[in-house]
Amino acid sequence: MIVAMVGASRCTPREAEMAEAVGRELARRGAILICGGRGGVMEAACRGAKAGGGQTVGILPGASRDEANPYVDIPIVTGLGQARNLIIVRSADAVIAVGGEYGTLSEIAFALKLGVPVIGLGTWELSKGGLSVDAIVRATSPVEAVERALELGKSNRSRDAVPGSA
Amino acid sequence: MIVAMVGASRCTPREAEMAEAVGRELARRGAILICGGRGGVMEAACRGAKAGGGQTVGILPGASRDEANPYVDIPIVTGLGQARNLIIVRSADAVIAVGGEYGTLSEIAFALKLGVPVIGLGTWELSKGGLSVDAIVRATSPVEAVERALELGKSNRSRDAVPGSA
Amino acid sequence: MIVAMVGASRCTPREAEMAEAVGRELARRGAILICGGRGGVMEAACRGAKAGGGQTVGILPGASRDEANPYVDIPIVTGLGQARNLIIVRSADAVIAVGGEYGTLSEIAFALKLGVPVIGLGTWELSKGGLSVDAIVRATSPVEAVERALELGKSNRSRDAVPGSA
Amino acid sequence: MIVAMVGASRCTPREAEMAEAVGRELARRGAILICGGRGGVMEAACRGAKAGGGQTVGILPGASRDEANPYVDIPIVTGLGQARNLIIVRSADAVIAVGGEYGTLSEIAFALKLGVPVIGLGTWELSKGGLSVDAIVRATSPVEAVERALELGKSNRSRDAVPGSA
Repeated sequence: MIVAMVGASRCTPREAEMAEAVGRELARRGAILICGGRGGVMEAACRGAKAGGGQTVGILPGASRDEANPYVDIPIVTGLGQARNLIIVRSADAVIAVGGEYGTLSEIAFALKLGVPVIGLGTWELSKGGLSVDAIVRATSPVEAVERALELGKSNRSRDAVPGSA
Repeated sequence: MIVAMVGASRCTPREAEMAEAVGRELARRGAILICGGRGGVMEAACRGAKAGGGQTVGILPGASRDEANPYVDIPIVTGLGQARNLIIVRSADAVIAVGGEYGTLSEIAFALKLGVPVIGLGTWELSKGGLSVDAIVRATSPVEAVERALELGKSNRSRDAVPGSA
Repeated sequence: MIVAMVGASRCTPREAEMAEAVGRELARRGAILICGGRGGVMEAACRGAKAGGGQTVGILPGASRDEANPYVDIPIVTGLGQARNLIIVRSADAVIAVGGEYGTLSEIAFALKLGVPVIGLGTWELSKGGLSVDAIVRATSPVEAVERALELGKSNRSRDAVPGSA
Repeated sequence: MIVAMVGASRCTPREAEMAEAVGRELARRGAILICGGRGGVMEAACRGAKAGGGQTVGILPGASRDEANPYVDIPIVTGLGQARNLIIVRSADAVIAVGGEYGTLSEIAFALKLGVPVIGLGTWELSKGGLSVDAIVRATSPVEAVERALELGKSNRSRDAVPGSA
């Protein structure tokens, strides 16, 4: 199982704490963490994953591996700028969003478009015409977020496995 | 001036009507229309632009020019899937969003991240923690949407022209 | 008909002269010129096309329209770095390569992979195991290069038009 | 150290044998294998790497993880088609090319453009104006190819580490 952590490269201490707990719990449950590979929420999640003995993949926007945070095991250097956000989402069974700026919103949007489950910890809320049309699954703690991500990611995977359903 | 029209490839008659009016007004005001080059809102906007004597550019997701709607003058074939959404937004001075599904939300998110003005006609509303944090400029008619797009796009351009401000 | 001009952003006076003549001839024959939108061979070709009254599209690698040469009519801002080379090639009916560095070689390689005809004016030669396996059509003058591009581009297009052949 | 294996998804038995030996030797030397994640040369290299106890990363062109060969540990789903070739090359310290079709040529071209060392086992030869301008380092065996890749990849890395040299 591969789970994406999305969130801003600058974040509050509370967001960093949640991201780190998500990373640690993903590691404990045997999931690989994929993220944008940089600072803030991404670095906190990678730090947590490594502390938990897990593995981390960073999908970097720029042209050099040097921009990866020190907890990235496998740095993927895309040189594609923000277009790398789609790769993070497509490669994941589920996405956990913490806080978030507009870059995070784009990742949530792509995930929902592609049918990848999104679990939110204090992130964007979406509505149209004043009515909530929010497909983000809300979690109230990092452990609950990971629990839901693994559960929803698993059913998402099984659906893929049905021949001809892609 | 280059203005992007973003919206779904399947849309309501009302959305198509608005998109067509936007395209016609952009043409009348001498702006080039850029969009995803396919059906629905995109086709309606291109049809309007051509009816108004304007020029249209379609940034296509697939591997062939054949997926362009018949009103695209310059088909750009990216083969990049949804990553082409970023090219539409980056190439525009302003973005007008009509209605919209998750793909449109991703385009809005990218535009806001890049600082490209977004004008909305009945599209997504954004909030965090129950508070609206909505940077989308709301318009109530196609003509007003184009008016705002040209005005905001122009100041956006001038800002770019200040040396060292990029 | 859309024809791509590929070549380096730094080039010899002889290469610039050939590229400019290619641009002028494409314009005279009513073809749209597509290129990387920057300096050297690209700028010379755009200058020729504009002198001939033609239209030019620049597929830019960076994040801003400001890097386009002054003869680009439609700047497409990709933010994708060298990955934009594929878009140039995919969007063209035929590719004309002048001189060329490794970036040009990548464009030739992609064109040959995709089945887009490549016409060469003093560009790379390819072999394997000491045997030439060169699918580049060699031209000896800009006018001949354009002639072959339009001819081969046309048959390439017709092939696409056969239903089910994509 | 991360080393890329590039080569066609259909290959001769001799090429598959070489690729498998490259994968095994990379694993033995502690390097991570990165490749396009599909069949032919890529699958053979991954199979070799897994047999040797190594780790494999597949940068997939399509929209689903299902196209990965069974020896890929970390499937990265790009949805970018051939543009994923650039990611393979950018993410590697060195590139080993076996045999090869035009897709492989594009990867070689990008690597040479980016200054990533390319080691060739029976692959393309490049010339201009009848003169060889071939920057590909030729190896005569898989073990030699890996040896050169690790050696050249290492000096390439050190160069990157000099502050301000990027």
